[in-house]
Amino acid sequence: MSFTYKPVDARDIEYLKSVCDPERVMTGESIHEDYSHDELAGIHRYPDVVVEVESREEVAEIMKYAWKNSIPVTPRGQGTGLVGAAVPVQGGILLSLVRMNKILELDEDNLTLTVEPGVLLMEISKYVESHDLFYPPDPGEKSATIGGNINTNAGGMRAVKYGVTRDFVRGLEVVLPNGEVVKMGGKIVKDSSGYSLKDLIIGSEGTLGIVTAATLRLLPLPRIAISLLIPFPTMETAIETVPKIIKSKNIPTAIEYMERRVILNAEDYLGKKFPDATSDAYLLLTFDGNTREEVEKQYEKVAHICLDAGALDVFISDTEERQDSIWSARGAFLEAIKASTTEMDECDVVVPRKNIASFIRYTRQIEKELDIRIASFGHAGDGNLHVYLLKDEMDDETYRKKLTAAFDRLYQKGEELGGHVSGEHGIGYAKREYLKKTAGDTYMQLLRNIKTAFDPKNILNPEKICC
Amino acid sequence: MSFTYKPVDARDIEYLKSVCDPERVMTGESIHEDYSHDELAGIHRYPDVVVEVESREEVAEIMKYAWKNSIPVTPRGQGTGLVGAAVPVQGGILLSLVRMNKILELDEDNLTLTVEPGVLLMEISKYVESHDLFYPPDPGEKSATIGGNINTNAGGMRAVKYGVTRDFVRGLEVVLPNGEVVKMGGKIVKDSSGYSLKDLIIGSEGTLGIVTAATLRLLPLPRIAISLLIPFPTMETAIETVPKIIKSKNIPTAIEYMERRVILNAEDYLGKKFPDATSDAYLLLTFDGNTREEVEKQYEKVAHICLDAGALDVFISDTEERQDSIWSARGAFLEAIKASTTEMDECDVVVPRKNIASFIRYTRQIEKELDIRIASFGHAGDGNLHVYLLKDEMDDETYRKKLTAAFDRLYQKGEELGGHVSGEHGIGYAKREYLKKTAGDTYMQLLRNIKTAFDPKNILNPEKICC
Repeated sequence: MSFTYKPVDARDIEYLKSVCDPERVMTGESIHEDYSHDELAGIHRYPDVVVEVESREEVAEIMKYAWKNSIPVTPRGQGTGLVGAAVPVQGGILLSLVRMNKILELDEDNLTLTVEPGVLLMEISKYVESHDLFYPPDPGEKSATIGGNINTNAGGMRAVKYGVTRDFVRGLEVVLPNGEVVKMGGKIVKDSSGYSLKDLIIGSEGTLGIVTAATLRLLPLPRIAISLLIPFPTMETAIETVPKIIKSKNIPTAIEYMERRVILNAEDYLGKKFPDATSDAYLLLTFDGNTREEVEKQYEKVAHICLDAGALDVFISDTEERQDSIWSARGAFLEAIKASTTEMDECDVVVPRKNIASFIRYTRQIEKELDIRIASFGHAGDGNLHVYLLKDEMDDETYRKKLTAAFDRLYQKGEELGGHVSGEHGIGYAKREYLKKTAGDTYMQLLRNIKTAFDPKNILNPEKICC
Repeated sequence: MSFTYKPVDARDIEYLKSVCDPERVMTGESIHEDYSHDELAGIHRYPDVVVEVESREEVAEIMKYAWKNSIPVTPRGQGTGLVGAAVPVQGGILLSLVRMNKILELDEDNLTLTVEPGVLLMEISKYVESHDLFYPPDPGEKSATIGGNINTNAGGMRAVKYGVTRDFVRGLEVVLPNGEVVKMGGKIVKDSSGYSLKDLIIGSEGTLGIVTAATLRLLPLPRIAISLLIPFPTMETAIETVPKIIKSKNIPTAIEYMERRVILNAEDYLGKKFPDATSDAYLLLTFDGNTREEVEKQYEKVAHICLDAGALDVFISDTEERQDSIWSARGAFLEAIKASTTEMDECDVVVPRKNIASFIRYTRQIEKELDIRIASFGHAGDGNLHVYLLKDEMDDETYRKKLTAAFDRLYQKGEELGGHVSGEHGIGYAKREYLKKTAGDTYMQLLRNIKTAFDPKNILNPEKICC
């Protein structure tokens, strides 16, 4: 499908300045460079105009206008995405939602929190924890907005026990491409009232509608969390222990894997020592619960499982300080790898849990065969790997060639192992070809039909996912 | 939208008999009466032909043919639905999926079970429990098929702690209206690879595609489950205790409410005494876990919360026998109420948890004002009520009038309280008007657009949900 858009002109800018405070409407030189890319910065394009919206009404007015005039609109949170989903590849209007950052309501009886889309993850966790409550999704990037998290169906470290963002969104308020406002879900716990529009919006990367409010599900805050850092002689031994842990009836909150070279990157980046970096491979586990005894009972059993499976040791971090030091290192892996090279791109593949070892082995093979440095870490408990391909000292052309060759083979392998292109970072602009290759024509046509069901003029975040 | 369908003729029957063993193709007198209605039997229509399919290939062949010839097709499981979703209101082909009842694969490393759609819930629980595993969704109707459960996004008793069917479907194989076969999801735990088609199919009541295989997520089987039956002086006191329990960090597996008159119905129906029927209102809780101490600790705290909130007593059922007697009574409520009257219809509304008491109070008011007997029970822990309007000795016209008046007001009230039309039984044919009234035009138009995205000829289960 090809669509024709109206170029943004002076009259459009004038209109936008009549809807929003003119100080929040930026054009030309006054557009910050940040607005032309996301975190991985592989895709660049400046929008014609940036509008920093402050309310649902403003979003709705702007969408009505853009709809009538066929102007492309790209919604954006903090720009912490990795696949170009928030880059305005067709120019037009960039709608920044970061000023819509109010916590609207904490409902302690229904255990829900209603927020605007620009509230940051770190603000949500701080706020609910001060009320003895808990929002489990825990992606590494705490400065992402909740709107961004909903739009990628972000996962994070605690998905093993608690699930992903989808599992914690009860209700959404969404402005459609034509400016109409629709509510989906609510504070209700169950719903069988027609197709789940809410579940379509979750993970739709800003292509079907703009989330202007979200009602999140909370849990009571577990009183205790204890982490175990477990060194293994090889990554295989580490990873092959995971299914045994999962089956043991002692489900950890998190099961992360990490390799020594990434830990060393993080030590350099943070200027801090990791508790141990003498082994090649580690599992990092967390257990949570309401009493120390309950948590101890769980992790003791799992520690034995690991030792029986070949673990070299088990380091228990039961003080907040020690845990913080480990988890802040884990949270800095992406930044640390980025700092260790000149440029990088990533593969966020997800495979069935028992196939992670095969996939990691394959990345090693690719690394050798294509002579490109590959760093990886990720969520061993849920089969979601983050594999980074690093440019280092290569020239642009060599890097592009190797990148393409590596991605082709990695995604192909992922598919062979029963996996999908993205576990939590999305498809956006950068991964469309790989989705197309692995999902097949019929699947892609359904995605395009759904896009048309919401946005027949294709003005909302065009050229993403399937278009 | 209006669509024209080709009437089924002798050539069509001949074709169907060439695809499937002719013994599995029934027409005219040989069609069993069961195929003309579902469990509540309010909507009747015979199909022109019933085909009892045995494979994905047969389903795909039949859909290709029906698509080419514009013949309506209605998929059907065990027919235990309550809203007419499996009734072929446009005639045509009824595809019975009950013979597709094979358990295809248990994957103990990935904790998944792959099944055909006709496998019964009771078979799944028996099978996985024999492997020390657990499929948590637990609707009252254990003889329903898993395909039916997926298509209504069935909830059941354990949703408080574990969630609903949606939370336990990892992958689907779906035959589209045009006969193409698409796989959605898989054995993977996370997925951010484009719009979640899987989540659209879940709860779509057989209108978007036909599920021919499903990969379900399993958990390790909890070793211990203990139930508490807790009498309260009034329903209000009982229900108002629920948010306190939820917030207490001791989340029960189930929180059901029941009133004395329904318990008496069940005693009559089963010919068995319930452990206690002297109070007006009861909460029935279950706690599960891996050690008796862990479970005891949880329920003791909750028992105290209930007693502090005005409970009259706490009966602990810690033997399998005592628990079975309580839960089999609970499981028989629907049948027992049905047996107590001449005809009935139900309202499966879901409201935010803290508004259940208001809703129940309102049903009492309706009961008086409209002079119609109303029985209710349901899932207090997740705000999902089952409210039955009973015909008793009324004549047809009076009953229809009262039913309409009562439904109008109940659904209106549900909406005012922040609820939706259906918590777990679906919209089907019977509840379309109420969905329309409460969801609004824009929402309904999106549903219709999605239906068109999958089924532009509207041949698959027409006139359901939104068409």
